[in-house]
Amino acid sequence: MTKFHKIPDVVIKRLPVYLRYLQQLVERDIETISSQQMGEDLNLNPAQIRKDLSIFGDFGVKGMGYRVIELSEKLTGILGLDKEIPIALVGMGNLGVALCQYNRYQSANTRIVALFDGHPSKIGEKFGSLEVKSMEELPAVVKEKKIKMGIITVPAQAAQNVADQLINSGIKVILNFAPALIQGPMDVKVQNSDVTTELQALAYYL
Amino acid sequence: MTKFHKIPDVVIKRLPVYLRYLQQLVERDIETISSQQMGEDLNLNPAQIRKDLSIFGDFGVKGMGYRVIELSEKLTGILGLDKEIPIALVGMGNLGVALCQYNRYQSANTRIVALFDGHPSKIGEKFGSLEVKSMEELPAVVKEKKIKMGIITVPAQAAQNVADQLINSGIKVILNFAPALIQGPMDVKVQNSDVTTELQALAYYL
Repeated sequence: MTKFHKIPDVVIKRLPVYLRYLQQLVERDIETISSQQMGEDLNLNPAQIRKDLSIFGDFGVKGMGYRVIELSEKLTGILGLDKEIPIALVGMGNLGVALCQYNRYQSANTRIVALFDGHPSKIGEKFGSLEVKSMEELPAVVKEKKIKMGIITVPAQAAQNVADQLINSGIKVILNFAPALIQGPMDVKVQNSDVTTELQALAYYL
Repeated sequence: MTKFHKIPDVVIKRLPVYLRYLQQLVERDIETISSQQMGEDLNLNPAQIRKDLSIFGDFGVKGMGYRVIELSEKLTGILGLDKEIPIALVGMGNLGVALCQYNRYQSANTRIVALFDGHPSKIGEKFGSLEVKSMEELPAVVKEKKIKMGIITVPAQAAQNVADQLINSGIKVILNFAPALIQGPMDVKVQNSDVTTELQALAYYL
């Protein structure tokens, strides 16, 4: 997998949106697509799409648009989604359960393969083929299943502690849903995904 | 509330993060803060913070940093969070329940005030002081409670239909958690928040 350095995070965030769209086109046997049509279908600026995709090479055919399969494969490779990405999820409250169930029905290569919770009452509970494990088992499971990505769905006050445990076990990327800003070392990518923050930003548009 | 036109969405998304941070400083009686310290605490580039905030006016005191209370109040006003923003949530599966419970314990002014579900088995169920209502009641409740913001947590195949019903009832801003790209008219802001897309983007950093 080739890495293109210094690509802005905002561009990276749009790539999976392009990818899913392209995969839908592949299913419908559509061979080429214009940035104009993509922009219309995705509610994005076509110039923005062309600029984003030009970073990774030239996928356009003049007058015809992008070659769908080629571009889809390229984006899959850039994102590293050409292999399964195992994920550990910590916190089996309603949100954790929702993410776990949802993930089971997704065809994407990002796969929750281990569940953890700090409460004894949750340990041993089964969701599909997965059993909730205790936090003590985290380091061994992460190592065994070669997990590099973690999802945190615990209450705010437990979030940093859980993050530290994930990081100490070798996790390199964390998606945090707890309403707490989590800190990590430079070589760990932490993304805080907070619904209240999203709602507050959307309030601007009212 | 003053509107500043053409502010990029990415800047708007950072404002609630700044705001929450500033509110924490207010609670700790901190009167001024440097962009340097903000950047460190929030894992953001200080130059980026200065650029973002300069759009809205001059809040800095040379050599001292930003005046915390003044900036906090300004951002609250810009986002329109100086009054309560009532929200309708549609889809009381695990994710809907999680968002609803979570929202109850938040001090933010974005408030879920009405719950809806399409399944008869869910209707009448109570969450805190709220009772799940049928989709038939949506237009009347939205009108009565002057709701302009909606959250969608239904399965993908139902999402566009639910969005259409929200929009027809007068909703102007939608946060969609269903894994389907929702379309709306020009005067409606739709934000798609999809976990799989987030995970796929994060895969890039592995």
